[in-house]
Amino acid sequence: MENVFANVRKRSPLVHCITNYVTVNDCANILLACGASPVMADDIREVGEIVAISSALVVNIGTLNERTCEAMIAAGRKANELGKPVVFDPVGAGASKLRTDFARRFLDEVRVSVIRGNISEIKALAESGGASRGVDACEEDRVTEENLDRMVGYAKAFAKRARAVLAITGAIDVVTDGETANVIRRGHPMMASVTGTGCQLTAMTGAFVGANPDNALAAATAAVEAMGRAGEIAFERLTPQDGNSSYRNYIIDAVYHLGNEGCS
Amino acid sequence: MENVFANVRKRSPLVHCITNYVTVNDCANILLACGASPVMADDIREVGEIVAISSALVVNIGTLNERTCEAMIAAGRKANELGKPVVFDPVGAGASKLRTDFARRFLDEVRVSVIRGNISEIKALAESGGASRGVDACEEDRVTEENLDRMVGYAKAFAKRARAVLAITGAIDVVTDGETANVIRRGHPMMASVTGTGCQLTAMTGAFVGANPDNALAAATAAVEAMGRAGEIAFERLTPQDGNSSYRNYIIDAVYHLGNEGCS
Amino acid sequence: MENVFANVRKRSPLVHCITNYVTVNDCANILLACGASPVMADDIREVGEIVAISSALVVNIGTLNERTCEAMIAAGRKANELGKPVVFDPVGAGASKLRTDFARRFLDEVRVSVIRGNISEIKALAESGGASRGVDACEEDRVTEENLDRMVGYAKAFAKRARAVLAITGAIDVVTDGETANVIRRGHPMMASVTGTGCQLTAMTGAFVGANPDNALAAATAAVEAMGRAGEIAFERLTPQDGNSSYRNYIIDAVYHLGNEGCS
Repeated sequence: MENVFANVRKRSPLVHCITNYVTVNDCANILLACGASPVMADDIREVGEIVAISSALVVNIGTLNERTCEAMIAAGRKANELGKPVVFDPVGAGASKLRTDFARRFLDEVRVSVIRGNISEIKALAESGGASRGVDACEEDRVTEENLDRMVGYAKAFAKRARAVLAITGAIDVVTDGETANVIRRGHPMMASVTGTGCQLTAMTGAFVGANPDNALAAATAAVEAMGRAGEIAFERLTPQDGNSSYRNYIIDAVYHLGNEGCS
Repeated sequence: MENVFANVRKRSPLVHCITNYVTVNDCANILLACGASPVMADDIREVGEIVAISSALVVNIGTLNERTCEAMIAAGRKANELGKPVVFDPVGAGASKLRTDFARRFLDEVRVSVIRGNISEIKALAESGGASRGVDACEEDRVTEENLDRMVGYAKAFAKRARAVLAITGAIDVVTDGETANVIRRGHPMMASVTGTGCQLTAMTGAFVGANPDNALAAATAAVEAMGRAGEIAFERLTPQDGNSSYRNYIIDAVYHLGNEGCS
Repeated sequence: MENVFANVRKRSPLVHCITNYVTVNDCANILLACGASPVMADDIREVGEIVAISSALVVNIGTLNERTCEAMIAAGRKANELGKPVVFDPVGAGASKLRTDFARRFLDEVRVSVIRGNISEIKALAESGGASRGVDACEEDRVTEENLDRMVGYAKAFAKRARAVLAITGAIDVVTDGETANVIRRGHPMMASVTGTGCQLTAMTGAFVGANPDNALAAATAAVEAMGRAGEIAFERLTPQDGNSSYRNYIIDAVYHLGNEGCS
């Protein structure tokens, strides 16, 4: 695990993000925190060139629109052509036909290295039915100790079908390439009170895969681990007056200090 | 007042925001801080579905454009059709014909539960003349102890005409449904040095009205009270080195701790 | 220098920014921190009116697109017509043909008071060749003590040709109007780990030039000095657990306390 993170700090991958305007600043800062460099560009006339100088492409559909949808597809295809890893975050899939349809279209047209989402979003991609509560996971969908075996099987089957590493994150995280599944019990429930911790993890996954392109499973697992550890460290640091805004800062601060141990 | 806030924490309303890209992250985090859930979506192809799963719609014209204007109208109409409350923030009305005209069009085409703005913005909606200094209120317009009676009368008359609860915020806040007027003297002048405290209050008002749909006056009043209290608590917390950026965090942090007292 | 900053606090210029959605919130907060007021507006139908009520226009191409490019040109022309200073930040020039071409077109069609960029971006504007690594400067381009004389000459020549004040920022900053060159050695390397410190400086430069329209060189120099001092003060304040997210807040906080000394 240490080597995977150390590679991020050593190689300092440039990560091209086409992401939502809600959490984009935190995505940029967490990329810098882990040792990567962010570049945000969403005009279809330039995404091909930006992909070409980047180590990975991150596509997040949090505030997609007609213009950016086409840029996402174009960027994804270019990344495929150049052999650059693509990380996909289907934010809010299941909440609208637009999101569900576009997410499926993206997976049809672009070969993806890692899909990162909550269980409701993943179900929306995998199945025709399935509820969704905006951009959050539904209570009844959650991965728990009780349903873990079944959910791991579910994740493996979808990962195999999608030919991608799948990271389903929540209280318990499952990361799988269809064969091996890593189960991670890290983080803190208060992370759900900070907007965009999922988006930030997706961005970081782009950095980790960009710096470790030959091992997407280890990279995605290390990113999930790092985000979880950051959530724990940041929680320890909270004073009685601190709330979710300070927690947001502390999480990014914690990432800034992680991964330096194994750095050569 | 306590029950109104307690309902937000109990019901955890999903609040659909079509808002500006300047302060959208803070709006999302303050919604989470008060116990609500944010969902930001501005593509006309999906706003109807997102409104349908939400408890309230918040429309903020801070960085409006041709594309989002139409999405705002479509979302507003859908909210009306489904009986979901709409909260409207006419950011910068009076500063450009585009903003003033669109704000009036929105109020013509969409039935609104609460309008939240500074006095200059409200005047721009109410009158044909009226100065504006960008997105801030003009000095000569401010609500003061001296002109309070007149301003309350003014607010009541506009609220009656608009058939909405009107929240005019500044050093002294006036919230009225045209009959009853609540005058709130809370907050701190330093709140004006943080971008988007108005936008954040509007977003929170969406959460409060979404959780208390039958009492928009009490809901808007409680949201204004909560934001003001948070501004006071956060100000107490400032160290000599802290400035407006830390103050921003502390305000959201303070909201995170409010409203838990009366929570059942 | 003191008078230049004092004028910002005294005159509180309204600064119209057409800027990227990644760092826009920090730009707004740093404008408030230094005593100015931000107004963000990018719809072509309103930019002329917003320029007309503002003291300066800031154009930043960080996330440009077809729609905003035209708004930038229209706003720039209006600013020229009305004699308002224009500050230009060619974010990522050199990284894509779109950015390089648009930056050159902007400088062709709009008379600019100050250009603020890193050395790679400036080289992309000045030359036909030149590498770029996304939005960051290339290692081989950096201004160092060794190449300083040559770089100052280079900067002067470009400033003269562009008929603008040029601020090239990095570890060593050079600000020149083509005749006089100010070399500033301030700030801290950790500023590179915060997204948008360049954008924030550009926004502040808008405030400084807006409040000191007759002395763009002194204004740009004072803005660069202020940002550098803020970076130093903020670095001093860091605790062992703080990382780049807290540093971001502390930089803006530090600006909030600067410039009050000489304020009359």
